[in-house]
Amino acid sequence: MAKYMDVHYGMKHITADQLMAAHKADLEIEAEERVHFERAWADPASGTVYCLSEAPSAEAVQRIHTRTGHPASEIHPVPISV
Amino acid sequence: MAKYMDVHYGMKHITADQLMAAHKADLEIEAEERVHFERAWADPASGTVYCLSEAPSAEAVQRIHTRTGHPASEIHPVPISV
Repeated sequence: MAKYMDVHYGMKHITADQLMAAHKADLEIEAEERVHFERAWADPASGTVYCLSEAPSAEAVQRIHTRTGHPASEIHPVPISV
Repeated sequence: MAKYMDVHYGMKHITADQLMAAHKADLEIEAEERVHFERAWADPASGTVYCLSEAPSAEAVQRIHTRTGHPASEIHPVPISV
């Protein structure tokens, strides 16, 4: 298992309710890919969402995000953190 | 006070020791701008570092990062999180 930071562009004007709904949808099916989405942060002005997860691969992260209707624009392994 | 996610590009091959040293340097002076750097995550392969903070402004975040020698490439306010 490894940590990933994925980034979604084009989410301008995303609301707190929309972010929560998207996160809940991910949580509902994440176990099927052994992914866990830990946190997400949104900048509605630029339309950027950052999402931190623990997962077996970037592909597993993307499969969950795709099934819930919001595929990531980028997925970065982040093996180092403080 | 608000939450910010800043992004540093061009940090290829950054090591755990280097990330820790950069974070410690920020922590040592952050109070002078009423900033607090909470977490940072690094992708050494692409050279991307994500850094989560609480601060009075993006400019305050950048002043600390600049004084410690690693100005951010982007600083995003992230008023929404889950």
